[in-house]
Amino acid sequence: KVDGDRLWDSLMQMAKIGPGIAGGNNRQTLTDADAEGRTLFRQWCEDAGMVMGLDRMGNMFMRHEGQEPDLDPVYIGSHLDTQPTGGKYDGVLGVLAGLEVIRSIRDLGIQTRRPIVVTNWTNEEGARFAPAMLASGVFAGVLTEDYANGRVDAEGKSFGDELDRIGWRGDEVPGDRRIHAMFEYHIEQGPILEAEDKQIGVVTHGQGLWWLEVTLTGKDAHTGSTPMNMRVNAGLGMARIIELVHRVAMEHQPNAVGAVGQANVWPNSRNVIPGKAVFTIDIRSPELAKLTSMRSEIEAGAAEIAAELGLGIGIEPVGHFDPVAFDPRLVGIVRGNAERLGYSHMDIVSGAGHDACWINKVAPTVMIMCPCVDGLSHNEAEEISPEWAAAGADVLLHSVLEAAEI
Amino acid sequence: KVDGDRLWDSLMQMAKIGPGIAGGNNRQTLTDADAEGRTLFRQWCEDAGMVMGLDRMGNMFMRHEGQEPDLDPVYIGSHLDTQPTGGKYDGVLGVLAGLEVIRSIRDLGIQTRRPIVVTNWTNEEGARFAPAMLASGVFAGVLTEDYANGRVDAEGKSFGDELDRIGWRGDEVPGDRRIHAMFEYHIEQGPILEAEDKQIGVVTHGQGLWWLEVTLTGKDAHTGSTPMNMRVNAGLGMARIIELVHRVAMEHQPNAVGAVGQANVWPNSRNVIPGKAVFTIDIRSPELAKLTSMRSEIEAGAAEIAAELGLGIGIEPVGHFDPVAFDPRLVGIVRGNAERLGYSHMDIVSGAGHDACWINKVAPTVMIMCPCVDGLSHNEAEEISPEWAAAGADVLLHSVLEAAEI
Ligand SMILES: NC(=O)NCCC(=O)O
Ligand SMILES: NC(=O)NCCC(=O)O
Repeated sequence: KVDGDRLWDSLMQMAKIGPGIAGGNNRQTLTDADAEGRTLFRQWCEDAGMVMGLDRMGNMFMRHEGQEPDLDPVYIGSHLDTQPTGGKYDGVLGVLAGLEVIRSIRDLGIQTRRPIVVTNWTNEEGARFAPAMLASGVFAGVLTEDYANGRVDAEGKSFGDELDRIGWRGDEVPGDRRIHAMFEYHIEQGPILEAEDKQIGVVTHGQGLWWLEVTLTGKDAHTGSTPMNMRVNAGLGMARIIELVHRVAMEHQPNAVGAVGQANVWPNSRNVIPGKAVFTIDIRSPELAKLTSMRSEIEAGAAEIAAELGLGIGIEPVGHFDPVAFDPRLVGIVRGNAERLGYSHMDIVSGAGHDACWINKVAPTVMIMCPCVDGLSHNEAEEISPEWAAAGADVLLHSVLEAAEI
Repeated sequence: KVDGDRLWDSLMQMAKIGPGIAGGNNRQTLTDADAEGRTLFRQWCEDAGMVMGLDRMGNMFMRHEGQEPDLDPVYIGSHLDTQPTGGKYDGVLGVLAGLEVIRSIRDLGIQTRRPIVVTNWTNEEGARFAPAMLASGVFAGVLTEDYANGRVDAEGKSFGDELDRIGWRGDEVPGDRRIHAMFEYHIEQGPILEAEDKQIGVVTHGQGLWWLEVTLTGKDAHTGSTPMNMRVNAGLGMARIIELVHRVAMEHQPNAVGAVGQANVWPNSRNVIPGKAVFTIDIRSPELAKLTSMRSEIEAGAAEIAAELGLGIGIEPVGHFDPVAFDPRLVGIVRGNAERLGYSHMDIVSGAGHDACWINKVAPTVMIMCPCVDGLSHNEAEEISPEWAAAGADVLLHSVLEAAEI
């Protein structure tokens, strides 16, 4: 068994870095707070005898040696970055549970044939630099380094410049590693496990996603003296498309979600009809056919709305992954260990994208999920219990030991 | 006749202060650019022999002496502040045409019995500090000084602090002046005069207005892993209320307008369902009954939308004036002079609120309007022709001379 108190204590210490405004965290990627979190994690790993590898995307690979160093290692990974108003567990649990696995193995004097590498993937959240899972995407060869380096935040700062600025760019070529298996332990970020009263989610699939950035161009004009029939109101177009996204998602129930999370109008003044609106649509489904048809219905509907209002429209995809099926052998290992250890468990689909979704393209991968109070995530009030955290870490420990071959 | 070239030249010089990004201006109230604009205007007035009075709201009163200094003066006034992406003429035309009237009177050696005071009213736009026409509202006794000083901008800076910071707070008690008549010359900010091919708008009425700031409170949650039926989406509520405002305005045609100009969601991240939305509704009509029923329909509809979505809702009025009827005698003077000088003219209603709307509560007031290309205003591309500008300034000159008694 892992040491649940030690795991919880590490979670609480990490949460002190980049505190939010309401009890959670604002430790966005490549900020000073992110650098501080990385330094603390590295220190903890080195104290546990691990050695760091760092690639050109800032991905951190903390290696615990195996009896046969030449065998492909088993990976445990997730992310330390957070949303602007994020919780204390989203991503962090998976990284620090990985550390706890190594600490436990050392305490128990267990030796594995394969090395074990605990990974912190850069910019999983995608809040500061879209898209999400950027650096694991580069690692998996789905995105290029140039693309990643060129992504800019709301202030126009680039991923590449900010990675250099915080001093966490390594030399290693991203993706230049062999992975025997990768495990990602994560909070569910949804309400199902709690509702079903299960301690462990065995993740068999992940939803596919499209992020579509819409730009509507109208005409700034005075709200008072412009007759209704002479308006070209980009804000009204945005409102109609927000409603459209909701409607299309509802029409594809079950197994579909859709919303607009980011929405801005210009010049954003009380008495100016918005001449421009920029917002992002987020649609998801575990079924590729549904995802594809939602996208085309929304694109067609949005074009119609724009035409009716006389607005210019541009739609740029800024994030995408297909639905994922995780490795059946690893899924079996996780399910078997949850069962053997006596934890209640169920098979589930991941609603969120995770680094594991990309790594699954280049290596056998699986996820383990922990319940999450009220399903609340991407919210400072995100909460889990120490017992839940420890249960999943136990399943992680046993599954990793099985994959790393004692 | 006024010197149209000199007027145009002054407009172009003022437009160099606080340039926008697309040929217009960003000279928002109580910024450094506003201070610079005030200093230039003061210099010009003093060069024309005028003497400054300054009240505790920063309203500037540039006095040209009359033959009988004890008679109540005739006022000409408008504003030098602009929208964040504003034009070169909105407000500025009325202030600099006032200056041009004095320059012309001096050139022509004309003497008036009554003094003439050219005024720059502080914070007409209301873009930085809501509501609009703040300092003329205090002058007219509709708003208090404390209320005005306490208004805050988006960065939390207060009107009072910023007025002190730029050094333009005077000693005079706002409203402590007798006004024989006030004239405001302004661009129409709408398309009617141009469409009807008229040089002069004789403004008989002004629309009434409500600005309602709506705050919707939902629950930040993950866009991917939160099932559709568990969402409390403040962004969706905002979208529905934007559509509601549009529908209610359309249902009250003609003589009604409505839109949402300012719209923000939190945390404004691509994969977070907005837990909060704050936006302002702007509704107007020259008919009090329509204005009142639009407001109650919108408030009732918004409450219903919030209830359906499970959102908390707060609606705070942040700006208001009733429809205005300008002084019939002054309206007659303006119409008579336009006719006598041979300018094409028509009676119109002001779609926008103006300082004259507040001053009309405490003194006889009237407005003169100048056409505006495509009716475009609150837009950097706002345009008028030098001939249009001069025509209205001519009517202003003759009307002011009539009121100031030669
Ligand atoms: N887990 C997570 O929130 N990842 C970011 C990408 C997504 O929104 O699914
Ligand atoms: N003229 C003008 O734009 N004034 C600001 C108040 C309003 O929006 O009508």
